[in-house]
Amino acid sequence: MTPTESAALKRPQKVLILGGGFAGLSCAKALTNPDFQVTLVDRWNHHLFQPLLYQVATAGLSTTEIAQPLRSILSDHKNVTTLMDEVVRIDLEGKQVITKERTLPYDHLVIALGAKTGFFGRNEWEPFTFGLKSLDDAMRIRREVLLAYEKAEAANDPAETARLLTMVVVGGGPTGVEMAGSLAELARVVLRDDFRHIDPTQSNVHLIEAGPKLLPVFPDKLTNYTREHLEDMGVKVHLNCPVSEMGPGYVIAGDQRIEANIIVWAAGVEASPVTKTLAGVPLDRGGRIQVQPDLSLPDYPQVYAAGDLVSLTDVNKVRVPGVCPAAIQMGQHIAKVIQDGDRIPYAYWDKGSMATIGRKAAVATFKGMNFRGFFAWLMWLFVHLLFLVGMRNRAAVFLHWVWSYFTWQRGARIILNRDE
Amino acid sequence: MTPTESAALKRPQKVLILGGGFAGLSCAKALTNPDFQVTLVDRWNHHLFQPLLYQVATAGLSTTEIAQPLRSILSDHKNVTTLMDEVVRIDLEGKQVITKERTLPYDHLVIALGAKTGFFGRNEWEPFTFGLKSLDDAMRIRREVLLAYEKAEAANDPAETARLLTMVVVGGGPTGVEMAGSLAELARVVLRDDFRHIDPTQSNVHLIEAGPKLLPVFPDKLTNYTREHLEDMGVKVHLNCPVSEMGPGYVIAGDQRIEANIIVWAAGVEASPVTKTLAGVPLDRGGRIQVQPDLSLPDYPQVYAAGDLVSLTDVNKVRVPGVCPAAIQMGQHIAKVIQDGDRIPYAYWDKGSMATIGRKAAVATFKGMNFRGFFAWLMWLFVHLLFLVGMRNRAAVFLHWVWSYFTWQRGARIILNRDE
Repeated sequence: MTPTESAALKRPQKVLILGGGFAGLSCAKALTNPDFQVTLVDRWNHHLFQPLLYQVATAGLSTTEIAQPLRSILSDHKNVTTLMDEVVRIDLEGKQVITKERTLPYDHLVIALGAKTGFFGRNEWEPFTFGLKSLDDAMRIRREVLLAYEKAEAANDPAETARLLTMVVVGGGPTGVEMAGSLAELARVVLRDDFRHIDPTQSNVHLIEAGPKLLPVFPDKLTNYTREHLEDMGVKVHLNCPVSEMGPGYVIAGDQRIEANIIVWAAGVEASPVTKTLAGVPLDRGGRIQVQPDLSLPDYPQVYAAGDLVSLTDVNKVRVPGVCPAAIQMGQHIAKVIQDGDRIPYAYWDKGSMATIGRKAAVATFKGMNFRGFFAWLMWLFVHLLFLVGMRNRAAVFLHWVWSYFTWQRGARIILNRDE
Repeated sequence: MTPTESAALKRPQKVLILGGGFAGLSCAKALTNPDFQVTLVDRWNHHLFQPLLYQVATAGLSTTEIAQPLRSILSDHKNVTTLMDEVVRIDLEGKQVITKERTLPYDHLVIALGAKTGFFGRNEWEPFTFGLKSLDDAMRIRREVLLAYEKAEAANDPAETARLLTMVVVGGGPTGVEMAGSLAELARVVLRDDFRHIDPTQSNVHLIEAGPKLLPVFPDKLTNYTREHLEDMGVKVHLNCPVSEMGPGYVIAGDQRIEANIIVWAAGVEASPVTKTLAGVPLDRGGRIQVQPDLSLPDYPQVYAAGDLVSLTDVNKVRVPGVCPAAIQMGQHIAKVIQDGDRIPYAYWDKGSMATIGRKAAVATFKGMNFRGFFAWLMWLFVHLLFLVGMRNRAAVFLHWVWSYFTWQRGARIILNRDE
């Protein structure tokens, strides 16, 4: 190192983190060394606990219970500045990021912009479906679901009523399973006594999966249990049933055409489109960045990526999945590499997988041990409360769940935006 | 009574209630006799606890905590049907109500459509201001207030920063006082440590009142206390200062021009414009219906009005104010008149008035007894929790308040609707 380089490193170094999800936030929190001036940019003002988003979409929780303002989480981190802004382009050569409002230079860059709903090349389906990645998405689904019942109560045509009470969820992963279960419960239990002209228990919830099983990462025993449990709850599960066509108010899957008021797309995600602005950086088919073992970009050792937009087989030959624990671990790993300067490789620590199926059943798998039913559901509750950011949100969600458990009610059945 | 009339009265009679606010809901709940088929129409799907709306607007409570679905409140009232629809016109001669979606005939009609923000003939000011009557209104204010701080953090021009951090509340009644106090507290306490480039405590909150005192219905001792307390909190109180002009981002009041990012209009309300469709019915200047002592309309004994759109000096010569207890009492009174057939006159039971000024002070007056400070604030909390509909909402709001009291934080600082 020349004296000039050494002096340059002495000045506070600028770390720019793009995205305030699990990866970006855990990285910002771990960068505690005041020699690093950290700027965290997110298009929203809040960190969102995505695993519970389906509960907001189905009127179980309110938006504020699963979101926390980024600048309040980072209030005590005096070396961290939070900016609400949208990333447009990353200029690796110029060592700067262009946002909607400004240009931000960096010494170290952490790309943690996450994923968005992906349609495997069929982007023309987007207008007919609801994705589930942001609070706005969840609020739109909540609004449409609740409005459908209001419209059905007033409708006179039986075919129209049937269409209004039909909901389709595409994709049999955890989000699809949880969404379908929650919609079925809303119809069969929560809304049961609240209408005079329609019978909400006659609603149809379809869960459509292209592959041969639900929850592909789980062992067969648990996925069969999941399917049976969903069917007991009234969900119509369609396996080996890829969607071939879609339009306003209908979906064709396998050899069936289903007329549906709401189609929720939980079949896939792709990396934030910003990755496409990274000239010369290798991406996989889903737009994910193929990073080095230490999570830096090939040829750009000061630029890192973390979370859902990373494609990596780790040092133990484990394919890193797009889940919260991986995102948190990656964010912390990058903070360590930046602060310590040691380029140690990242190793994914598998904390297992879980998914809830309705009100008091879940499946969980952890290092070869499998759990299902009520006990798995309690585990699911505990883990989700633990990871939720903020004591108030934990207390509020806990209270909400206890109340819902005993009353069979949901606390957020409110339609906003009259004139949307 | 002829045999035909007697037979006609035997069939279940149709009671149509317009509006699910305090008046309409209390009327629907009190109509327990199954001989009456009740239909409740509201443009929203929820009953809203308006007295706490200012806390939603200032990020203290979430929307779902002060709203409850009408059909879930009325779930056990099997003779009540709830419809989400908007009233367009009332046809008194045809005994029917025309809504956006349908025509509804009635035997008894209860008009309880409430009030909307009123500008005393200066409707051209509406686009420059935020009213505070619905959850949508509150969400818009919350969004603009939170966004103003985000923009200020990123702004480089000191004049622009000052403008972004200036908020004006017009109207010194309870809503204006509570709103101004809550905005000042947000700036001075809640946001204090969360920014790096601006100092939120330098925000300016102006409370503008045309008359000589705040809270006109309270005794001077309490209104002086209110003004002093607000000024201690940093609110700039302007008395005898009518607004003479307004435009995008500024207001002229008295001899001052204030550049402000947000102007909240809490200066007046007028009756729902539907009252203007009542041919031949006497209205006061604010569009309120001048009802008979039993709350029926002159010449239309089967048509009643209740709540904020009623103009009445009651049987005890007391002018009935536009407050929740009066609305609830009127709704119950009408239910009694309809069910029992006795045309007894309505007598307002004054339950006193209260207003909160920030985090732990309030003023209350009840039958000549005056309270202020911490004790009055505890009274305020207790009364508001009591009147809030739904055990879950009570528990959630109570938890929220306890948490806010000890942490000085607010739980709903979330910006939604990225693309609005």
